[in-house]
Amino acid sequence: MSGTERQEAVTARYGGEAARAVAEGPWNDVIAALLAHRTVRAFRPDPLPEGTLDTLVAAAQSAASSSNLQTWSVVAVEDPATRKRLSGIAGGQRHVAEAPLVLVWLADLSRLDALGRDRGKPTDGLAYLEMLMVGVVDAALAAQNAAVALESLGLGTVYIGALRNDPEAVAALLGLPPNVLAVFGLCVGHPDPARPAAVKPRLPQGVVLHRGRYDPALADGAVAAYDAAMRDFQAGQGMPQVGWSDAALDRVRGPESLSGRDRLREILERRGFGLK
Amino acid sequence: MSGTERQEAVTARYGGEAARAVAEGPWNDVIAALLAHRTVRAFRPDPLPEGTLDTLVAAAQSAASSSNLQTWSVVAVEDPATRKRLSGIAGGQRHVAEAPLVLVWLADLSRLDALGRDRGKPTDGLAYLEMLMVGVVDAALAAQNAAVALESLGLGTVYIGALRNDPEAVAALLGLPPNVLAVFGLCVGHPDPARPAAVKPRLPQGVVLHRGRYDPALADGAVAAYDAAMRDFQAGQGMPQVGWSDAALDRVRGPESLSGRDRLREILERRGFGLK
Repeated sequence: MSGTERQEAVTARYGGEAARAVAEGPWNDVIAALLAHRTVRAFRPDPLPEGTLDTLVAAAQSAASSSNLQTWSVVAVEDPATRKRLSGIAGGQRHVAEAPLVLVWLADLSRLDALGRDRGKPTDGLAYLEMLMVGVVDAALAAQNAAVALESLGLGTVYIGALRNDPEAVAALLGLPPNVLAVFGLCVGHPDPARPAAVKPRLPQGVVLHRGRYDPALADGAVAAYDAAMRDFQAGQGMPQVGWSDAALDRVRGPESLSGRDRLREILERRGFGLK
Repeated sequence: MSGTERQEAVTARYGGEAARAVAEGPWNDVIAALLAHRTVRAFRPDPLPEGTLDTLVAAAQSAASSSNLQTWSVVAVEDPATRKRLSGIAGGQRHVAEAPLVLVWLADLSRLDALGRDRGKPTDGLAYLEMLMVGVVDAALAAQNAAVALESLGLGTVYIGALRNDPEAVAALLGLPPNVLAVFGLCVGHPDPARPAAVKPRLPQGVVLHRGRYDPALADGAVAAYDAAMRDFQAGQGMPQVGWSDAALDRVRGPESLSGRDRLREILERRGFGLK
């Protein structure tokens, strides 16, 4: 493990200027693999190696779970017609239809609800916003472990938050009971070497890392440098050079920019979540 | 990498009976590290290796982020007095005071809010429940990458959801602005070899993994076997042998069992989140 390899990985993640602010720190193969993450949206149609699903679920279940409640589930979708319907729900993202496997990660309060009914025990605590939070965090920790495992096998992944554009359509398609939300999807497949993905730069460390106490002033100035790093990245990928801040602000400008997700609270209430 | 090593890891994660249902699948050192996760609550007081914070934040920032909005931050707490106060907020959990580093992971919508004000652009989309969800998922994916990186260095971690017992006290202690929620903490330190932790068994794969379509019947029967596996684990750890289902149902029986987190929605609204 050379210092050069570390420096190259950090430079790819932050861009040249901001990378210099990242001090020398411990390094190993696992950390190198984490830093090498890139979003893959171009997949070969080949099936996954035998047993991949068993391995990724074992990795997912090895993540921490709040009070060991394990308030998550995952639906593994391989059927092409179902993937095509999911692709439509996600605003027509082609990779959802093309990846051989789409994992739909669920915040799942229905298991404890059913267990309580079976045992004649109250489960009134499930009706609180806190328990949706527990389910969402459980699902996210599990999914990230799966993503790390899959990438370590040379497979590519991309998260699909756009399943929240229409959670009711996802629920109908996959037969989800009340008290279950599809938090996001994860496309899995062999990356297409003809359409390679690159490591995307992130905000400088000083923007997200606060030492001892939150410091809102940290963001000043760093955003302009990051916009420049993102424009470089976008140019290299043949994408429009919009930078970061304008695109991010456009994404949150109002309910009309949320692709239907401004209805999430109303939909969750209809799907049985108390959200008290 | 031997098949025996894989079998032992899978057996530790599921208990003997359920492990046999996990087919042979791909395996490597990263996956072995993920499956070896255990919750560490006993730390030596020694400081962390130089540069650990830089490395873990680089790993965290390498996780996926919804639309690259990067709606998360982390506060690194090393000061013993602040850790002691956090320990009090978390119901007196000793490891929060004893671990040399406590990371407080934040769903952070304030950065985009401040950027919008600075540029004179609207950010009305931030006032929706969807954006809290984005922040929570972003924070969780980042934290899990950090946890994986830390464990690969031989360090131990434990998530502290109990910071949500009193988010306002955490906000006051760490100077968090409006539109920022401390989602959970993560204690980090050298595991104390005198008080070793074990791999906790999880629900059988068939309970959380649904193939093609959600199947609520999957949970039937498997819970009793898992309760037995958990009693074995608890006996080995010198803990009360309560199994899983009774403890889980007790945790969600009503607002009084949520340790104050039944107030989360009210607190989030006071802290500036629209939750529309």
